Amino acid sequence: MVIKMLELFKSIKLDKNSGAPLYMQLFNVISSMIDKGTLLPRTKLPSIRQMASLLDVNTVTVVNCYRQLELKGYVYAKKSSGTYVSTVLPPVDKKEYTNKYDYVDKNVILDEIYPGEDISILTSKIRFDKKTINFASATPSSNLFPVEDFKLVLNEVLDRDMGNAFNYQDSQGYRPLRFSISNLLKEHSVNCSEDDIIIVSGAQQGIDIISKTLLKDGDHVITESPTYRGAVAVFNSRRAVVTDVELEEDGLNLNLLEYHLKKHRPKLIYTIPAFQNPTGVSYSKSKRKQLVMLAEKYDTYIIEDDYVSELDFENKNFKPVAYYDKSGRVIYIKSFSKIFMPGLRFGFMVVPPHLKKHILGAKHATDISTSGLIQRALDLYIRKGFWHKHFYSMYETYKNRYTKVVNSLEKYKTDNISYKKPGGGLNIWLKLPYNCVVNSLLERAASNNIVFTPGRIFFSSTSSNLNNIRLSFAAVEDDKIEAGIEKLCKLI
Amino acid sequence: MVIKMLELFKSIKLDKNSGAPLYMQLFNVISSMIDKGTLLPRTKLPSIRQMASLLDVNTVTVVNCYRQLELKGYVYAKKSSGTYVSTVLPPVDKKEYTNKYDYVDKNVILDEIYPGEDISILTSKIRFDKKTINFASATPSSNLFPVEDFKLVLNEVLDRDMGNAFNYQDSQGYRPLRFSISNLLKEHSVNCSEDDIIIVSGAQQGIDIISKTLLKDGDHVITESPTYRGAVAVFNSRRAVVTDVELEEDGLNLNLLEYHLKKHRPKLIYTIPAFQNPTGVSYSKSKRKQLVMLAEKYDTYIIEDDYVSELDFENKNFKPVAYYDKSGRVIYIKSFSKIFMPGLRFGFMVVPPHLKKHILGAKHATDISTSGLIQRALDLYIRKGFWHKHFYSMYETYKNRYTKVVNSLEKYKTDNISYKKPGGGLNIWLKLPYNCVVNSLLERAASNNIVFTPGRIFFSSTSSNLNNIRLSFAAVEDDKIEAGIEKLCKLI
Repeated sequence: MVIKMLELFKSIKLDKNSGAPLYMQLFNVISSMIDKGTLLPRTKLPSIRQMASLLDVNTVTVVNCYRQLELKGYVYAKKSSGTYVSTVLPPVDKKEYTNKYDYVDKNVILDEIYPGEDISILTSKIRFDKKTINFASATPSSNLFPVEDFKLVLNEVLDRDMGNAFNYQDSQGYRPLRFSISNLLKEHSVNCSEDDIIIVSGAQQGIDIISKTLLKDGDHVITESPTYRGAVAVFNSRRAVVTDVELEEDGLNLNLLEYHLKKHRPKLIYTIPAFQNPTGVSYSKSKRKQLVMLAEKYDTYIIEDDYVSELDFENKNFKPVAYYDKSGRVIYIKSFSKIFMPGLRFGFMVVPPHLKKHILGAKHATDISTSGLIQRALDLYIRKGFWHKHFYSMYETYKNRYTKVVNSLEKYKTDNISYKKPGGGLNIWLKLPYNCVVNSLLERAASNNIVFTPGRIFFSSTSSNLNNIRLSFAAVEDDKIEAGIEKLCKLI
Repeated sequence: MVIKMLELFKSIKLDKNSGAPLYMQLFNVISSMIDKGTLLPRTKLPSIRQMASLLDVNTVTVVNCYRQLELKGYVYAKKSSGTYVSTVLPPVDKKEYTNKYDYVDKNVILDEIYPGEDISILTSKIRFDKKTINFASATPSSNLFPVEDFKLVLNEVLDRDMGNAFNYQDSQGYRPLRFSISNLLKEHSVNCSEDDIIIVSGAQQGIDIISKTLLKDGDHVITESPTYRGAVAVFNSRRAVVTDVELEEDGLNLNLLEYHLKKHRPKLIYTIPAFQNPTGVSYSKSKRKQLVMLAEKYDTYIIEDDYVSELDFENKNFKPVAYYDKSGRVIYIKSFSKIFMPGLRFGFMVVPPHLKKHILGAKHATDISTSGLIQRALDLYIRKGFWHKHFYSMYETYKNRYTKVVNSLEKYKTDNISYKKPGGGLNIWLKLPYNCVVNSLLERAASNNIVFTPGRIFFSSTSSNLNNIRLSFAAVEDDKIEAGIEKLCKLI
């Protein structure tokens, strides 16, 4: 083997008369041998002296070539041992990162749904391609992301902070970012200082950390019915007993809620008070206030999951439940996943002072801290005003889609399809006629290139409410909306 | 107010004869008004027509200026409403990101220790500055991070994948990265395919997710004594009963282990078999094999936390415990935090096939997925061979420090200080004379600018083993090692 390799190198022809420096010619030959697999990973290259003699060149040529190879990652030097070929892997197949129709979006949909749910119908029948009319995904399509601006701040942070951007960040989060966020929150009527904010890796992690802090086996939790299943999955993973309470057009049924508060003394109430997922319901001001009062009265906590309150297309101007909380009963959780870039894995919580120490302990045990690089880049992004710029562009895009969906529904829906205009958010909740079987509709829609989410996956019990569907317009292209709604109404 | 603002704009003087385009002159004036706070966030700017008339310029000048302001994030346009000043925050104070001695490293130390531990002595007495000799931090100092290479791959990924890099990644992790890692793992004698790997946000999250999968209230867990407290914090947060078993010079005391396995039927055994934290102990081959056999016999699982097995300075060439596992008893967890950049929040697990579905469910409920951008960048970093290049440079750095620490100890330690050369890793575990009070030593060392970690924080019970200390050499500068050890030995 060794002899064969020596012959291989001996056969290299360098052109001393060409303009290109010899060391670069040698670099090109060897790097291409590595790319092609002629030289395998962990092969030891000849020593500098040996190589120079094989090729009849100066040792400096070989030194320079090896240095280039090392800089480009083709080889690595082991001290007092020699130079070895690195494991250079072939570049990633293009379809792994570009074919968003077949690859990324399908995952987005799967990620909406907790693994273990019966989603075989949704996933087996669907093929995503450019023709698909996607009313299933509640996550923005990736072409709306502000990649260039974010790249700019990432690079600025790397140049500014260097290695510091890659060390552990403290568990509560990068202080300047907490300051920037407390500033943004003023626009959301959440008054807090940077000390009240804890940075997390998304709203999902926020719910997990709060559960870790407050719940033990057998504790009771109250949720809305229907609700976001990802939250229920967390409560189940803590082995809590989840009781769901009927969601009315202006919020939870408070009589039922109080009945369960009395009976079960739950540790937590989980709510999405603005443009709820999946129903689009927003709580009235009165129910927001009463919710806080009930939490106080029955000594429990509220998780307020504010996932899109800022997509308020009809100026309802509701204040968050946290706004009415004077006694530290509300934990306010927010992520920007629906407006910004979900893959950053970023969110934050505003927590009552008396819980802060315990929540920080739980965050630390969960993953020590959220990526410092992402936090620093996001801070700069907000400080430079890019956040507002991006937000208003997303707001207009979504508002436009919302209007199109609502107008198309008014135009094409039959009398036995009912819904209530949510006035904001990213979802419309349709009630279909009783004789319409959603599973069969899913199949027929899929064969017409239309996908949506069946309502039943948002309920804990599958026995009731089988005839709802959720239409999301976060990822559907504007020019497909009307045709999609028309077709869907016909299929129903 | 409005009139005052109009006057403000009217007073702007543009120089029509200067070479600079008028719109840029206007941009400079307005952006500096925003920077200085003369124009407050959410202030509405005059309409284009109005501004043009105030300044006696063409409307095109104002249009171009407003566009520039918007591009740079200074203002945002609300459709059919007007142009508003963004919330541009002042730049971050320099000390928040540069003063690593006072700011970052102190946090690094705090992050080694679970909040709630009594660390008042360690933190209140210590002032970090350039003179500090840091034997406390087991995390690399940030000047060792390969910032430039990582910046290069980050930018290449952003150009290549664009928005796709910011969408949800699937819960198991970016497939190409799992492939790259399965390739690297061959060098660690871990044979697995990309299907067996689950990407997580650090080893800490891995331990948390496994606990979520396997533990419920009151279940038993066995750990080494002493051990990494971050793991114990997770088991406590699941309300598991943690039993610690004496760690001998070649691994756990297996008789004691079997006694507890019989008595408690634990669900999990947590172990760091290579260069253990804090003791530096490595398991013998025989104990590695027996550990797996015992796990099989008593129907339990092993978490193998491989945090620095690759820092094998004396070529012990131990194979991981997972290597001996033929029946799916070992969950192998690895992060690169000690070699690479801890702030990336990245790690991975190799999981037995029959547990995979449940572990994926727990990962999803924990934070949906790990940052796709970081995963894609890391994949490219490995594929380009940068990983090997960086690893061997870190290996040499650490080996050099290890040798210096050991040589200095041999030179300066008195007979009543004992330790065993670990042969690798990042820690040396010293046993001090019985009459040496570690708390008082901590104070005296701190006043001599030397910090280390008291051994007691690694034990669950504070009653025993009060006279150990952990010396870490991950963050201490080479030229301070000998002087630091000399002084410390004198103080003891």
